[in-house]
Amino acid sequence: MKVNGEDFQTIWTDSTESKIYIIDQTKLPHKFSTKSLHSLDEIINAIKIMEVRGAPLIGVTAAFGIALAMKNNPSDDSLKNASSRLVQSRPTALNLQWAVNRMNEKLQSISAEKRFETAWSLSKTILVEDIRTNQSIGKQGLHFIENNFNKKPLEVLTHCNAGWLATVDYGTALSPLYYAHNKGIDFHVWVDETRPRNQGAHLTAWELGQHKIAHTLISDNAGGHLMQKGEVDFVIVGADRISMHGDVCNKIGTYLKAIAAFENNIPFYVAAPKSTIDTDATKNFFDIPIESRHEEEVLMMQGLNSNNELTNIQIAPKGTRAFNPAFDITPHKYITKIITEDGVYSPQELKSVYS
Amino acid sequence: MKVNGEDFQTIWTDSTESKIYIIDQTKLPHKFSTKSLHSLDEIINAIKIMEVRGAPLIGVTAAFGIALAMKNNPSDDSLKNASSRLVQSRPTALNLQWAVNRMNEKLQSISAEKRFETAWSLSKTILVEDIRTNQSIGKQGLHFIENNFNKKPLEVLTHCNAGWLATVDYGTALSPLYYAHNKGIDFHVWVDETRPRNQGAHLTAWELGQHKIAHTLISDNAGGHLMQKGEVDFVIVGADRISMHGDVCNKIGTYLKAIAAFENNIPFYVAAPKSTIDTDATKNFFDIPIESRHEEEVLMMQGLNSNNELTNIQIAPKGTRAFNPAFDITPHKYITKIITEDGVYSPQELKSVYS
Repeated sequence: MKVNGEDFQTIWTDSTESKIYIIDQTKLPHKFSTKSLHSLDEIINAIKIMEVRGAPLIGVTAAFGIALAMKNNPSDDSLKNASSRLVQSRPTALNLQWAVNRMNEKLQSISAEKRFETAWSLSKTILVEDIRTNQSIGKQGLHFIENNFNKKPLEVLTHCNAGWLATVDYGTALSPLYYAHNKGIDFHVWVDETRPRNQGAHLTAWELGQHKIAHTLISDNAGGHLMQKGEVDFVIVGADRISMHGDVCNKIGTYLKAIAAFENNIPFYVAAPKSTIDTDATKNFFDIPIESRHEEEVLMMQGLNSNNELTNIQIAPKGTRAFNPAFDITPHKYITKIITEDGVYSPQELKSVYS
Repeated sequence: MKVNGEDFQTIWTDSTESKIYIIDQTKLPHKFSTKSLHSLDEIINAIKIMEVRGAPLIGVTAAFGIALAMKNNPSDDSLKNASSRLVQSRPTALNLQWAVNRMNEKLQSISAEKRFETAWSLSKTILVEDIRTNQSIGKQGLHFIENNFNKKPLEVLTHCNAGWLATVDYGTALSPLYYAHNKGIDFHVWVDETRPRNQGAHLTAWELGQHKIAHTLISDNAGGHLMQKGEVDFVIVGADRISMHGDVCNKIGTYLKAIAAFENNIPFYVAAPKSTIDTDATKNFFDIPIESRHEEEVLMMQGLNSNNELTNIQIAPKGTRAFNPAFDITPHKYITKIITEDGVYSPQELKSVYS
């Protein structure tokens, strides 16, 4: 998608096969900067501190983490160690596990001397597939929106960032909106700021702004009020993990918006690639690990000071402790449709489609 | 209540009868500073920019606004003008109208030369009554908590600041908690940070900290997840206006917490003085004015930089627009009990008690 009119992806390679390039998302929206990552350690760090984030993008980045680990040491132990460290780097998003598993399935049966070449090639395949998947999600979503809504302007609410910055390109929840925009559909997006990391204020507002899509930033507290007032026609979000029962794990606060939509008879859509679906139907979804992140994310905030310098400020009184769960789970009861690259399904349909 | 061990109220007078003193709440928690207000204009400004905030405290401050207007000019026109400007300064909270009406009822029948003296005296009465009212709310709430909960520690969630800083002293929603603390009841408070003005992070965390009450700051997004996990035994909040049907207007985001509590079978309590109750039963509560505040409150944030200087930072991308409704309405369906200075009532009981 576009950055100042120029085409970008969130992650790319060059011909040296020794590093990957990423957009450093911790600096957005105030500074657009890219950086290169040369090793498994650098990749794990980038995932942990959220220079790359968003379930699909984490998955692709992790694949390259395995590849760079194989370049350094293609042994079984190295593969096992890299895989384990990557999976633990962010415990909730399923795409990370999915990508690591996919790399392992391919690499385990391959001799050490061919592992790097195979791993690099498969990582690039996963990257390209992510773009195609998100294009399909966009088309499925666009088709669904066109068939179900004709209000002008259509009022959409989204939480967190499930845009192109959360993937290699196009995005999940925002992909249908980019397609709708290109088709000239008249809509406006309410952007939840999405505390504590402000992915809505920092990333979604930025990428919608870059594409001239009408949007307004709101505090996370305001969405329920807007729904009560009839100012939201549908909600669309991404997902970090979806159970076979259609329960959705996504950014903290998604659950509150889903129950508010339910109470106000507003459709609530989840858009995600099928790699987000946890096909282990025996799993009690409420037992999946919910990552707790550092309390500094709640206690501090980053922005530009009056001299245009990136500044961290302390919000809460000195000594205040915070609790910072990164995700919550929205039971399928509150979810209207799940949009994947294959189609648009009710939560109940997932099992028959994906098992 | 205590500030660094010393007793304070949020508003007080001295013997000169020419000014009032307040705690400047826009500087908390980073700087504790007090200031004096000498005129109606200064008082209206303090209310608008939220140097004083919280429905009960706004009401008391507005009463002194009328008094200082009468000192300057005790004419009928002056009274009418001061009343109108005060009521418009923050349109949602009913206590402001209530205090202004009460002053008018008394002053309209009094000759101009006695108006200031009477107004000053009634303002002081309203101030003292607020303290007593909040003490009663605290005792009613304590009694109710003792009779209904015996889990240790009791887990409480609150939104915004309905503590002593929102009143002259003791608070509304937090008053029962101060009484419970003094009685040695074992509890812990989850403090919603309450974007966009951060009254939870700035004020509630600070006043609970000053009184050594166990608390943890959370993003507004986290409360639903905590409720799902069984980490909240009850929610308690204040109110800016309560309808005779038991619908509650309170800080934006209250509604989201109320429906989450409802979905998880967690009691949701509202504590407020009866002056918050709008006895006009014909009113459609969803038509009451919801104040929209400046978008800068969403786009900027205040805190301490690394040099311990109070700093404002810009969070969102340059040019981003925001919408900033300050309150929402929670329908009575989601409210378990309303605690006033007179007792603890179901929303349905309000009409018989207060009409």
